[in-house]
Amino acid sequence: MHLTQALKRAVQIKGNEIASFCAGRERTWLEARERIARLAAALYSLGIKDGERAAILALNSDRYLEYFYATPWAGGVFVPINIRLAAPEIEFWLNDSGSRVLLIDDRFLPVLAALQGKLDTVAHVIYVGDNNCPDGLLDYEQLVASHPPMEDTNRGYEDLAGLFYTGGTTGRSKGVMLSHRNLVTNSYNAVPALGLATDMKWLHAAPMFHIADGCAIFGVTAVAGTHIVIPAFAPEATLQAIQTHGITNTLLVPTMVNMVVNDPDVLNYDLSSVRGITYGASPMPEAIIVRAMEVMPDCGFTHAYGQTECSPLVSTSGPECHVLAGPNAGMFKSAGRAVIGVELTIKDGQGQEVPRGTIGEICSRGAHVMQGYWRQPELTANTIKDGWLHSGDAGYMDERGYIYVIDRIKDMIISGGENIYSAEVENALYQHEAVVECAVIGIPNEQWGESVHAIVRLHANQPATQEELIAFCRSLIAGFKCPRSVSFRDAPMPLSGAGKILKTKLREPFWPDQSKGVN
Amino acid sequence: MHLTQALKRAVQIKGNEIASFCAGRERTWLEARERIARLAAALYSLGIKDGERAAILALNSDRYLEYFYATPWAGGVFVPINIRLAAPEIEFWLNDSGSRVLLIDDRFLPVLAALQGKLDTVAHVIYVGDNNCPDGLLDYEQLVASHPPMEDTNRGYEDLAGLFYTGGTTGRSKGVMLSHRNLVTNSYNAVPALGLATDMKWLHAAPMFHIADGCAIFGVTAVAGTHIVIPAFAPEATLQAIQTHGITNTLLVPTMVNMVVNDPDVLNYDLSSVRGITYGASPMPEAIIVRAMEVMPDCGFTHAYGQTECSPLVSTSGPECHVLAGPNAGMFKSAGRAVIGVELTIKDGQGQEVPRGTIGEICSRGAHVMQGYWRQPELTANTIKDGWLHSGDAGYMDERGYIYVIDRIKDMIISGGENIYSAEVENALYQHEAVVECAVIGIPNEQWGESVHAIVRLHANQPATQEELIAFCRSLIAGFKCPRSVSFRDAPMPLSGAGKILKTKLREPFWPDQSKGVN
Repeated sequence: MHLTQALKRAVQIKGNEIASFCAGRERTWLEARERIARLAAALYSLGIKDGERAAILALNSDRYLEYFYATPWAGGVFVPINIRLAAPEIEFWLNDSGSRVLLIDDRFLPVLAALQGKLDTVAHVIYVGDNNCPDGLLDYEQLVASHPPMEDTNRGYEDLAGLFYTGGTTGRSKGVMLSHRNLVTNSYNAVPALGLATDMKWLHAAPMFHIADGCAIFGVTAVAGTHIVIPAFAPEATLQAIQTHGITNTLLVPTMVNMVVNDPDVLNYDLSSVRGITYGASPMPEAIIVRAMEVMPDCGFTHAYGQTECSPLVSTSGPECHVLAGPNAGMFKSAGRAVIGVELTIKDGQGQEVPRGTIGEICSRGAHVMQGYWRQPELTANTIKDGWLHSGDAGYMDERGYIYVIDRIKDMIISGGENIYSAEVENALYQHEAVVECAVIGIPNEQWGESVHAIVRLHANQPATQEELIAFCRSLIAGFKCPRSVSFRDAPMPLSGAGKILKTKLREPFWPDQSKGVN
Repeated sequence: MHLTQALKRAVQIKGNEIASFCAGRERTWLEARERIARLAAALYSLGIKDGERAAILALNSDRYLEYFYATPWAGGVFVPINIRLAAPEIEFWLNDSGSRVLLIDDRFLPVLAALQGKLDTVAHVIYVGDNNCPDGLLDYEQLVASHPPMEDTNRGYEDLAGLFYTGGTTGRSKGVMLSHRNLVTNSYNAVPALGLATDMKWLHAAPMFHIADGCAIFGVTAVAGTHIVIPAFAPEATLQAIQTHGITNTLLVPTMVNMVVNDPDVLNYDLSSVRGITYGASPMPEAIIVRAMEVMPDCGFTHAYGQTECSPLVSTSGPECHVLAGPNAGMFKSAGRAVIGVELTIKDGQGQEVPRGTIGEICSRGAHVMQGYWRQPELTANTIKDGWLHSGDAGYMDERGYIYVIDRIKDMIISGGENIYSAEVENALYQHEAVVECAVIGIPNEQWGESVHAIVRLHANQPATQEELIAFCRSLIAGFKCPRSVSFRDAPMPLSGAGKILKTKLREPFWPDQSKGVN
């Protein structure tokens, strides 16, 4: 169980076939291995060995792909950095991971300037862009050209392979430690679950720093498919790449699916090569997936659910669930069933499995579960209990093993001993025509512990009162779940980098001691 | 990576669907788990825990399947015994493995009587047949009925899961130690390689004691397919089962394929449900596989190659190689390319990789490689070097990563410094119309070290001289490979239990010191 084994197998069986296509550059698997073994030698000479960390802050490219293999080849650990972060967050990730080397492209040179003097461990910065290498940086292509290929250090199994940072919407970011075993296991699980096959052409349109696309990086190499890379998602670029390269598979987050299938030109592109689209990472509105199924009737859609802590794949609902009639009609709303190799269950607060249909915390166990949070043993112990990864997601499982994700556990309100899922209340409020945006939180209440409070933004020309909204909710959900109070705001809700509403911020005024705000 | 995880997942997603069908008995996955947890409790109470061994000597049945899960569930190690062995060999396996429990069916009760007083460790014998339980034996169904289900001990990862005995054609049998990781990894590898899918119905016609079918036991459960079990292979029973149950997939050894596709009634059966047939374990004559492709034109055939020591799958050539025209025409002769997760190479005697097309020893590395031979550390060290499992098979790899198996390394003759593969010489001899059966061995030669000697059995009415056969070989293969001497025999060649010619026996008269005979 070494990440580089899949690369070697791809070289063996398809040495002269195309491994990657990016920005007009084609690389065969033989060329890719040669370049990776040379880059590994360069990284090794810069101290990336024996578990030392090399971070990358860049848009997608074939060099990003090479980095994902050269780092373990040299014996190092990769640290892909979220490209949407602000400079102080990047600073935290680099320092927390103790990265000795940073790879960076043109887009992030200004950030590098802003971090001058603030990085504790970064000793070398490698420029992975296509222009002239800026002064003081090492040129990627020159490193590859000047280092003879090294032998694979053959790091594997329980050795740390990568740190994937997560969180940040509440509390500080956490480095998720994924071993070779974790990531190799995930790629095994992904092959049947995502329908990966050796003749596939995978489009990397989603950002490669994210574990969701990372899962494809290792999975596509496992089947010796072809990687097609575009620097970043844009609807036209994606449609164009599909048509030009005959893309068979890709992964998109719901907003990307929305932008593609609702692009005014979508029907002018030949998308007939697409066999499978995987989506996940945030809820998929029904209208969008139904539209996608109309636009690409021959494409099999797969709804994937997971967490970075799970390397990431936990469950999928595949093409058999993306139907509008029959016994599986609408099953795409489910986050699916456990992929092969994953033990999945729903637990109550005492760690006991709940009956089917009962809401609890989604937990999974198996070789896909992270080693832990980087240098945070206490947080690790709170998250992995008796081998079970506690996802923090509330959901239930139906009789056929399909799970449904309801809410984040931390957004659950406990009022008078009853568990109330904020998402359920929000879903009710969103059905009121006056509501543009809403968030439901628990606020302190002496009698009930917490009481349900809604924060609502209304359409400019559609007034609604607190009483009216509460009455509306009562017509849809049980009384104890309905808001006891509503506050109105004109400004949009505060959002995280990932576009999620920052409930922590919304809770702050109500919880002066922060006891509910941080977790 | 626990063998029982796949069982639990199957229960979760298909609890009320059929897990197994055997002898008119249907079990749902829920029922199967219940019975397995009860049988585990019984085994546990008989001392099968913490790595203790429970052996089985029986024809195929659904109980055999339950045994494969109940043993690890209890924390024990399974030891499936070859049903073709003679009593002294069975005695050796049981004593060498130190099995405390033996499961046995009607067929083998006479053997049990013969072993009376000779078994050192077997304390309990469980009767798994359908008749009345003989005196002194424990009744399987009574054990299941009388023990409440126990919790899974959750043995996994590097824990020993099973001992699969191999060899015996030369030297004594060896217990191959396969861990949970080995067998789970193999089932991951098998899913895409053998085209396993959740809607499959697998026919267990090949003997379940053999790791080849064992691979299906764990693979089919991994995808939550359905197991259909017949007690033993017979052409009519196999054809009937395919038609009755709508079998989608099975595994057969070449002689079984031959008997099925050349059965006079084959075309009277509806075989249209069959999607995939995997074959392997011995060479497949071209005429038989071509006939099979004619009889079942919609079936995808897969030629699988492996060893017990590899859990067992190493490489496959799939349906894309089972074609008679185009670039892959006749590629079914290849043992295929490395399955996902397996690092495969051809090495010379010094452990260096040889160029493509050059014959050497087939070696593989990865999580599929056994832990070692039971209580034989020296033999283990000679077989696994630097992580590479040395198969003992001579072969070469082509430019596209397909391997071809030529011979057993130990059957290779070294004459005047040249390596000569006996199989190549035998193939030449078999083309002579007078030859019924032949075996080529090395015999002592002062000048050349060894010289090539052929042992030949001729058709009764077709005489041929030594000179004639040597001249015939010269017309087909290089001079140095041709036999220097030929001896004729009237009796059939001595065969092993698996039907292989026992060259050890043939070499004996020529090598009085046995130096060539044992390895």
